[in-house]
Amino acid sequence: MRILFKFLKVAFVALPLLAMRQDKPLRVIFFGDSITQAGVSPTGYITKMTEMLKAQGKESQYELMGAGIGGNKVYDLYLRLEDDVLSKKPDVVFIYVGINDVWHKTTYGTGTDPDKYVKFYEALIKKMKAQNIRVIVCTPTVIGERNDASNPQDGDLNYYSRLIREIATRNNLQLCDLRKYFQDYLAQNNPKNEEKGILTTDRVHLTDNGNKFLAEKMMEALVQK
Amino acid sequence: MRILFKFLKVAFVALPLLAMRQDKPLRVIFFGDSITQAGVSPTGYITKMTEMLKAQGKESQYELMGAGIGGNKVYDLYLRLEDDVLSKKPDVVFIYVGINDVWHKTTYGTGTDPDKYVKFYEALIKKMKAQNIRVIVCTPTVIGERNDASNPQDGDLNYYSRLIREIATRNNLQLCDLRKYFQDYLAQNNPKNEEKGILTTDRVHLTDNGNKFLAEKMMEALVQK
Amino acid sequence: MRILFKFLKVAFVALPLLAMRQDKPLRVIFFGDSITQAGVSPTGYITKMTEMLKAQGKESQYELMGAGIGGNKVYDLYLRLEDDVLSKKPDVVFIYVGINDVWHKTTYGTGTDPDKYVKFYEALIKKMKAQNIRVIVCTPTVIGERNDASNPQDGDLNYYSRLIREIATRNNLQLCDLRKYFQDYLAQNNPKNEEKGILTTDRVHLTDNGNKFLAEKMMEALVQK
Amino acid sequence: MRILFKFLKVAFVALPLLAMRQDKPLRVIFFGDSITQAGVSPTGYITKMTEMLKAQGKESQYELMGAGIGGNKVYDLYLRLEDDVLSKKPDVVFIYVGINDVWHKTTYGTGTDPDKYVKFYEALIKKMKAQNIRVIVCTPTVIGERNDASNPQDGDLNYYSRLIREIATRNNLQLCDLRKYFQDYLAQNNPKNEEKGILTTDRVHLTDNGNKFLAEKMMEALVQK
Repeated sequence: MRILFKFLKVAFVALPLLAMRQDKPLRVIFFGDSITQAGVSPTGYITKMTEMLKAQGKESQYELMGAGIGGNKVYDLYLRLEDDVLSKKPDVVFIYVGINDVWHKTTYGTGTDPDKYVKFYEALIKKMKAQNIRVIVCTPTVIGERNDASNPQDGDLNYYSRLIREIATRNNLQLCDLRKYFQDYLAQNNPKNEEKGILTTDRVHLTDNGNKFLAEKMMEALVQK
Repeated sequence: MRILFKFLKVAFVALPLLAMRQDKPLRVIFFGDSITQAGVSPTGYITKMTEMLKAQGKESQYELMGAGIGGNKVYDLYLRLEDDVLSKKPDVVFIYVGINDVWHKTTYGTGTDPDKYVKFYEALIKKMKAQNIRVIVCTPTVIGERNDASNPQDGDLNYYSRLIREIATRNNLQLCDLRKYFQDYLAQNNPKNEEKGILTTDRVHLTDNGNKFLAEKMMEALVQK
Repeated sequence: MRILFKFLKVAFVALPLLAMRQDKPLRVIFFGDSITQAGVSPTGYITKMTEMLKAQGKESQYELMGAGIGGNKVYDLYLRLEDDVLSKKPDVVFIYVGINDVWHKTTYGTGTDPDKYVKFYEALIKKMKAQNIRVIVCTPTVIGERNDASNPQDGDLNYYSRLIREIATRNNLQLCDLRKYFQDYLAQNNPKNEEKGILTTDRVHLTDNGNKFLAEKMMEALVQK
Repeated sequence: MRILFKFLKVAFVALPLLAMRQDKPLRVIFFGDSITQAGVSPTGYITKMTEMLKAQGKESQYELMGAGIGGNKVYDLYLRLEDDVLSKKPDVVFIYVGINDVWHKTTYGTGTDPDKYVKFYEALIKKMKAQNIRVIVCTPTVIGERNDASNPQDGDLNYYSRLIREIATRNNLQLCDLRKYFQDYLAQNNPKNEEKGILTTDRVHLTDNGNKFLAEKMMEALVQK
């Protein structure tokens, strides 16, 4: 009798949770630039994450959506935040932006000043938090794969990554430290100190291996408690 | 009797309007960068406009407010639009931004791409129009005063000015073509083809004469029907 | 008798000149960047000049040689001056450099400061003059064909062109004012204010028409007394 | 008798050498940019080296000369090589250039491409070697003193330093690895990860401590066998 009661008690609590889970998967938006735009292609990292979830029989628990546009910098995300993210009512958002903020300084003269980068980044966070979104911030990966700190933008990417780590701490947010993961990987797996060809095809955009590696790291962050 | 009635009818309609006018001056915000930030200083162009209104006995009809921050580009205006403009319920807004969008390309590598410039500019306009604000758009003045089209940023400033003229047409807005006014003035008043010293102290920021010239042009635009 | 004497006198003077002319054509080197490198291709401007000379039966009087290397700036010319020009003992040298000195500022951050541009340019001239070479200096053509002074580098190209005009005057050299010729042509022949497609394929490198136009202007300068 | 002869033979050879040594100190030229220009000031590194030699009673053995000009890049050194170095018949030359080649990319858009940097560097070396000069090549120190590889130009400075190390190897030259020395020092002596104030006043130019540190490292290289 007591056991039955206990079972019922558990059932009363657990069943609605289960039901909710089945009816409404966790909606996850990846908000970023060209790497994320390519993330929903057949070999992209978001596609690979969906495949990983299927393989684990968890496809009904998550709904992964890409919101990446090539060439985007942090303020471009801010301009389309309402349309491309908030209006879609996501539960989780990965912010993965910064490559172009650094890169375009050299290639077009139109990068983003570090103080402005932080300002817009925190403006994004504020609006997402107001909608109770779980925000996961990512450090920018690489512009060049050399592992002796001699890629031209390494200093700046390290600096912007540090700014994001500080943003995570200050706003009490989960950090997905992609730059660190990439650097650690390349320290082990780039014996010839190549500029590209390991995780990237062109120093920035991902190889199949790069997409796979990114998918794993994003997944770890997503399922983390 | 009928005449009296008519007079009264007119009086009932007109008196509140007259009263309103006296009670509530036209609120005008100047939204821009360091030139506008300096505009509210004792010798700045906004101060000079207020003095012009006083001299004409119109000080009660207009309330001029500066909203300029040094180093601002178009997307910085977008970020602070709500706080610094919309929340103040202005009747008229001058948008005067673009110098840094061009200049910072060279000095910091952090200028603004032309397509992004237009995008953010029109996003500003859209939000202001939704609040029934009369928007006056200004072309960027100068970076260097040489009058033979040989200042390094002349090509880019001409291009961004053209974009603003197109924005004005497309959005049916009043244009205050400051760049044209400055170029015409310098064609006449810079016989030695100097880089600075006529309207600017340092190729960008205004001399007393520059502030006076700007104040006149802004005033013409403001009182224009 | 007197007539015979006169004839002989003329013959004594003229014959050696004629002989010299036939034995040794005037050697002309075009010293520059990618436009000049492409100048010796089948449709290039130097090839077209050679064809023009043939059509006029003057092919034996001139020997045209290209010395252009893609991406070259003025200091690159200085580094290879001995090998690619002086050692070849030319009679005439066209210096046609400046596009990359301006353009690379934006695209790679590796343009040339104006004062350094002048310094290296005059160092080139000094060494050529020491070898009695007739030097013809050319202003840089275009980066973008818009005819309303709104190509991003127009201001800088106008400035560097002015520097070259001043170099020509200061060093008493012949000027081939290519930028002016191009601007005048585009003012007449670019009704839609296009960025490219009239004289250039890509805002810089020449169409067949562009090569033809350049060949004519270079030829005028070459045969000028 | 044979011994006397041998002694005399040695004496005849050795005495002039000894005499020459005493009469003619080793002439050392420091060839570089603003850091070297400031090196001959009362607190500069070259002045400190001269003081060190005096303290050791070796002032008659060395003659140290500065040949630094503010803002110089590698090609500027090439332009003034004859006048400022070769014509002075030095025995030893320190080449210490590269900061501006990297820095000016961002601040003026007029840095030096890496391949051109190597080309001009080796052209310098070739001409010095032809005059039997002992060349010591130095890696560029720092632009920013942060010790977590997050100064904006760290990647590029590391890259150009690697190019110089390769130049040293390829040309069989002595290397004075200043960048490594500075980085090692800052790893130990910059606990707050400051941008400036330890070895530099402004991220680039040297404090008194910086000049002292540089003088020691240069001296070690100079007296090295």
